[in-house]
Amino acid sequence: MPRPAGTGRITFGIDPGVASTGIGVVSEVDREYRCLGYDCIRTYPDEPFVRRLVRLNAECVKAIRKHRPDSVAMERLFFARNAKTAIAVGQAQGALLLAAAKCGLDVVFYTPNEVKSAVTGDGSSDKAGVALMVQKILGLKEIPKPDDAADALAIAYCHLVSTGSQGRR
Amino acid sequence: MPRPAGTGRITFGIDPGVASTGIGVVSEVDREYRCLGYDCIRTYPDEPFVRRLVRLNAECVKAIRKHRPDSVAMERLFFARNAKTAIAVGQAQGALLLAAAKCGLDVVFYTPNEVKSAVTGDGSSDKAGVALMVQKILGLKEIPKPDDAADALAIAYCHLVSTGSQGRR
Repeated sequence: MPRPAGTGRITFGIDPGVASTGIGVVSEVDREYRCLGYDCIRTYPDEPFVRRLVRLNAECVKAIRKHRPDSVAMERLFFARNAKTAIAVGQAQGALLLAAAKCGLDVVFYTPNEVKSAVTGDGSSDKAGVALMVQKILGLKEIPKPDDAADALAIAYCHLVSTGSQGRR
Repeated sequence: MPRPAGTGRITFGIDPGVASTGIGVVSEVDREYRCLGYDCIRTYPDEPFVRRLVRLNAECVKAIRKHRPDSVAMERLFFARNAKTAIAVGQAQGALLLAAAKCGLDVVFYTPNEVKSAVTGDGSSDKAGVALMVQKILGLKEIPKPDDAADALAIAYCHLVSTGSQGRR
């Protein structure tokens, strides 16, 4: 179902994690960026692990269908405290990638450095610095909370800036 | 749809990996173990990454529905060469866990040491040693190939042995 004309490009950003996955939706029309929504999908350790992934997948499908983005962007991790953490992030990514696929969308990955550089111009910015810049760029009244949601908006913005006029509808 | 009486317990073992996921199905009736099938789901680097996970998920659902197991067992990793490898295994696990969930089954995890101990009595056995013992235990004419499929049979067997008379139908 096509969106109304003039809506521009819409990117759905995802900051993946089993316990908390940030999602953030950003649109771009003539280099004006707007926040269309952000949220955090939470799952809890007392749920069976498979159910947590099922919920991440289902909630993500619901959010993608609601916002009908052109593209999905996700954070790509190369480092982790340990293999256990890395595997958990991978498991969440797997569930979320399948959610995008279910909606007919491929996923573009960006490293944390690429995301920070796009938002603040500095690949070594901290989370607070990124969230503050996200607020400014998107003209939000408040700093988006929690951090995972702010990161997801940053990832979506990074994709829109990186792809420039490519893929414009 | 219930299976015929006397089929005993059936476990579907999974050795997860993005490029190659081993699957192996083992039944147990009165401590007699039989191989009901094994295979390897392969995906290729020239496919878009999301498509690879979609294929792992879909092929796994198909195989589970074919064999109608009572339980699904998967290898749990704690170590990996690097975070990139760990994340890739996690992504494959995520796609395969959702496949089990789609079939209404939860997943039980076993460490490589637990699997090796169950099969050979030695947690430090190499892959060849495990494959040879799997062949003997399951009375197979040939050593199951590739290694991922042999590992998947070992994981399924480990679950059946570990759970003993629990969950018997």
